[in-house]
Amino acid sequence: MRSPLPVIALTLGDPAGIGPELIARLLAQPDTTSRANVVLVGDPWLWAWGQQMAGVQVATTPLASLEQARGRANTEQAAFVAMDTVQRRDVMVGQVSAAGGRSVLQVLNRCMDAARAGAVDAICFAPLNKQAMKMGGLQHEDELHHFAEYLDVQGYFCEFNTLNGLWTARVSSHIPLKDAASYLSVERIQQATRLIYRSLQAAGTARPRVAVAAFNPHGGDGGTCGREEIDIIEPAVRALNAEGVAVTGPYPADTIFLKARDGEVDAIVTMYHDQGQIAIKLMGFSKGVTVQGGLPIPITTPAHGTAYDIAGQGRANVSATEQAFLIACRMGAASLSS
Amino acid sequence: MRSPLPVIALTLGDPAGIGPELIARLLAQPDTTSRANVVLVGDPWLWAWGQQMAGVQVATTPLASLEQARGRANTEQAAFVAMDTVQRRDVMVGQVSAAGGRSVLQVLNRCMDAARAGAVDAICFAPLNKQAMKMGGLQHEDELHHFAEYLDVQGYFCEFNTLNGLWTARVSSHIPLKDAASYLSVERIQQATRLIYRSLQAAGTARPRVAVAAFNPHGGDGGTCGREEIDIIEPAVRALNAEGVAVTGPYPADTIFLKARDGEVDAIVTMYHDQGQIAIKLMGFSKGVTVQGGLPIPITTPAHGTAYDIAGQGRANVSATEQAFLIACRMGAASLSS
Repeated sequence: MRSPLPVIALTLGDPAGIGPELIARLLAQPDTTSRANVVLVGDPWLWAWGQQMAGVQVATTPLASLEQARGRANTEQAAFVAMDTVQRRDVMVGQVSAAGGRSVLQVLNRCMDAARAGAVDAICFAPLNKQAMKMGGLQHEDELHHFAEYLDVQGYFCEFNTLNGLWTARVSSHIPLKDAASYLSVERIQQATRLIYRSLQAAGTARPRVAVAAFNPHGGDGGTCGREEIDIIEPAVRALNAEGVAVTGPYPADTIFLKARDGEVDAIVTMYHDQGQIAIKLMGFSKGVTVQGGLPIPITTPAHGTAYDIAGQGRANVSATEQAFLIACRMGAASLSS
Repeated sequence: MRSPLPVIALTLGDPAGIGPELIARLLAQPDTTSRANVVLVGDPWLWAWGQQMAGVQVATTPLASLEQARGRANTEQAAFVAMDTVQRRDVMVGQVSAAGGRSVLQVLNRCMDAARAGAVDAICFAPLNKQAMKMGGLQHEDELHHFAEYLDVQGYFCEFNTLNGLWTARVSSHIPLKDAASYLSVERIQQATRLIYRSLQAAGTARPRVAVAAFNPHGGDGGTCGREEIDIIEPAVRALNAEGVAVTGPYPADTIFLKARDGEVDAIVTMYHDQGQIAIKLMGFSKGVTVQGGLPIPITTPAHGTAYDIAGQGRANVSATEQAFLIACRMGAASLSS
């Protein structure tokens, strides 16, 4: 008796940020549990605290383990799997802490264990803080690299941001900007571009219009202001075209997003973190969603951060978390039916 | 008998771009010459071509030299100072050329000669192409550095972009992005920040709210993702505060522009070209204006480029050129009265 609804694991994120109150607000919406078999995973005191900050009360069904989620009867209520990862006294609202980062790692690892065992179809996590996670034991540059290792990913993976139908991928991500140039390579650009192209095709766009961004000011101005376009990006686009991946570029970064906003492209492959993030946040910060591409299970999260400056005030905007949850539901349902 | 109107030198920009048609459209507006004693400088065939592309006819008063502008009687008509810098047969619409770049350099140098002689109060130039200018003899990384050397500037100078009341300065500009990190220094950040702070004060904002941007993703995430914030930017902000320049930062680049859009800051000091350009173009590309800060005379230009892809089609948007002209008029009038 397998449930037709995908099992979505939800987490509360960094305990000092806006995650707990966002998840409380999400679960307080009546249609949330109509879309999925939702299992919330985290510390009971933190879940109580999130509800208090959001000013809501949400009934949940206790569940001994994530592995019991798929068969359960009453999916009209979210299930709650309790963990003991962090003490209330170790969390100061709005403060980075190793304890908070450690907690996030433990909860996400638990969710991935369940996903690997086939018990969970997708994970949607509330905002985390990378600094806290590094203090708390994260051994990688960011959570995506941790996910990939934890899930034994051998192929290429990268983070996508989606916003109102525009997808973005990036060739480098959470690395110092001074290292971004040496990180560029024909192969890395091919991999990121191929993955977003195929992901868009898998999501239903038969001939996605994918634009590859330039790296330097004015796209290098014909080589007078940087040569990465000529030496790396143009060869990568030519090679992609030769293998049937019909993408275009490189385009100067400060104008390609105008074309995207006008609906002229479906996706942009950016060369470094802020090149895409500055644009996508200006285009609709509150609704952006990060999708971890190239993993064996879908993992999504709102694109915004922990917003320490407004944490605990009950005024965080839930719309990005809603969108992240909806994408997790769609992708989880697709993988369930495939 | 000194005219109360400032003398503004106007140029047609790169002959293969949209500059000539933009200037024709600007001068076809009846109130343009009510704001300034306008002197257009350029090649007669190119001016005729610009009018043709714009579908307008504009009568001008021939003038033998820029130095004769200040005393002239009929400022209701723009004056025209003819030069012979480029042949029509050497210009292909929409194509970069050394001939085009050389032409732009000659015209701008002529305007600066007149400004140095006190005959011109401000210069507003139509879009140029840096690659063409380098092919045509530009010895510097960009036109601003050429202006500074040509005008014997000894102090600090940098380019500002203004858009709907938000000003931005940048610490580095037209250099390869891979060199941007090594270009950062406490002194350079102090200089750019001081100049924009004082320029805003001079423009009438007694206590400007100036925000300094971070350099790395997430502002370096506490040093785990780049150390320029800790080692360079924070010390610069502290030093500025100590000397009474009340600025704040560093702020992650992908969120500070959201605050700016909400009107929470008057200016942002960015660390590299695209950090500001991606944002400001998304916030209103068609009206952005570049102001060359720190020069002895005001020089302005629309922030957009030569738009080779639509040059000669008569559909270029004139609003940024109008704004650039208006700022030149205001700054020129201020320097005239000071």
